[in-house]
Amino acid sequence: MSKGNQTRDRILGHAMRMASVSGLDQLSIGGLAQDLKMSKSGLFAHFGSREVLQVAVIEATIRCFEAEVVQPALALPPGQGQLRALVQNWIGWSYGEDRPGGCSLAAAAFEFDGQAGRVRDRVAAAFKLWRRTLLRAVERGKEVDIPAGVDGEELVGEIFGLYFSQHLFHWLLGEAGAGEAALMRYDRIVASWH
Amino acid sequence: MSKGNQTRDRILGHAMRMASVSGLDQLSIGGLAQDLKMSKSGLFAHFGSREVLQVAVIEATIRCFEAEVVQPALALPPGQGQLRALVQNWIGWSYGEDRPGGCSLAAAAFEFDGQAGRVRDRVAAAFKLWRRTLLRAVERGKEVDIPAGVDGEELVGEIFGLYFSQHLFHWLLGEAGAGEAALMRYDRIVASWH
Repeated sequence: MSKGNQTRDRILGHAMRMASVSGLDQLSIGGLAQDLKMSKSGLFAHFGSREVLQVAVIEATIRCFEAEVVQPALALPPGQGQLRALVQNWIGWSYGEDRPGGCSLAAAAFEFDGQAGRVRDRVAAAFKLWRRTLLRAVERGKEVDIPAGVDGEELVGEIFGLYFSQHLFHWLLGEAGAGEAALMRYDRIVASWH
Repeated sequence: MSKGNQTRDRILGHAMRMASVSGLDQLSIGGLAQDLKMSKSGLFAHFGSREVLQVAVIEATIRCFEAEVVQPALALPPGQGQLRALVQNWIGWSYGEDRPGGCSLAAAAFEFDGQAGRVRDRVAAAFKLWRRTLLRAVERGKEVDIPAGVDGEELVGEIFGLYFSQHLFHWLLGEAGAGEAALMRYDRIVASWH
């Protein structure tokens, strides 16, 4: 890896942690330069504007999400086990040590929804893709051990609800067991199929 | 109402609409002064800092929420009807004409969860109170027509999930029927009690 790429990766790693705590909205080239003891012009050489920086942070976060949440689950055979792994990895993801303030994409979904632009478009595309990934896992699982009568759209809506309510209960209201409670709620939904 | 209070109300009304679209994070005394063609010093006379302005917007939004969502439902007798009115009013609230970009409190719950301070504390207190209001409606409803076996915490968690998933589906992903779909999902939960 070239020195330029190493620097870029170091900047992005720090920016991702900042976005996790304070949100993508609060990211600025000036603030980042101060934290990393770099010149603003040096940072501008890597990211030409705040929006470019924000989109680069989103892209880097999505790559981590793919590697930590999606790929390990999709490596399992289709069915209830794979779907549960997707749900469990998603919930667990927001408590990873690289994300001291939770998932910046989840926060951005609510921060940027009214602000037209590349940041909003990129976040929306990521959630559309993630939703399709979950839906496909339900449909493929029906060829194995997910009952044919399960409404995929409905179930994926419930999974989104579980995720965002536990996010709020944990990060805003400070309830330490919110993630585990959400996973138990998911297991009760699955148990109701039988 | 004094002229000073009228001006304050006009400022808050505009600030609430701004917060609905771009989030409380983006609110600034300078931006507001420009929009309202007022001097920054005039605005500072009403709100001494950006944080005071943000908290005033939250307080004003909570008063609207009490008047439009909570009070009309609590005027109904306890039971399933009252609980459904709370849920329906909450979902409907985010589509009110005074909120062109949805509920700023919902967005703030995700924007400010990692940022210590008065804004975060006020938003967290509002959601704690709202959750208690829903829980109390479930418990009082059990004396009437809500089955005793319904787990209040669980049901309120599901209601939070319904709300935040429809918020994301509508405002981020642009699905026009997300609010109605969430209310139908709530009705299916209630139907499963029988």
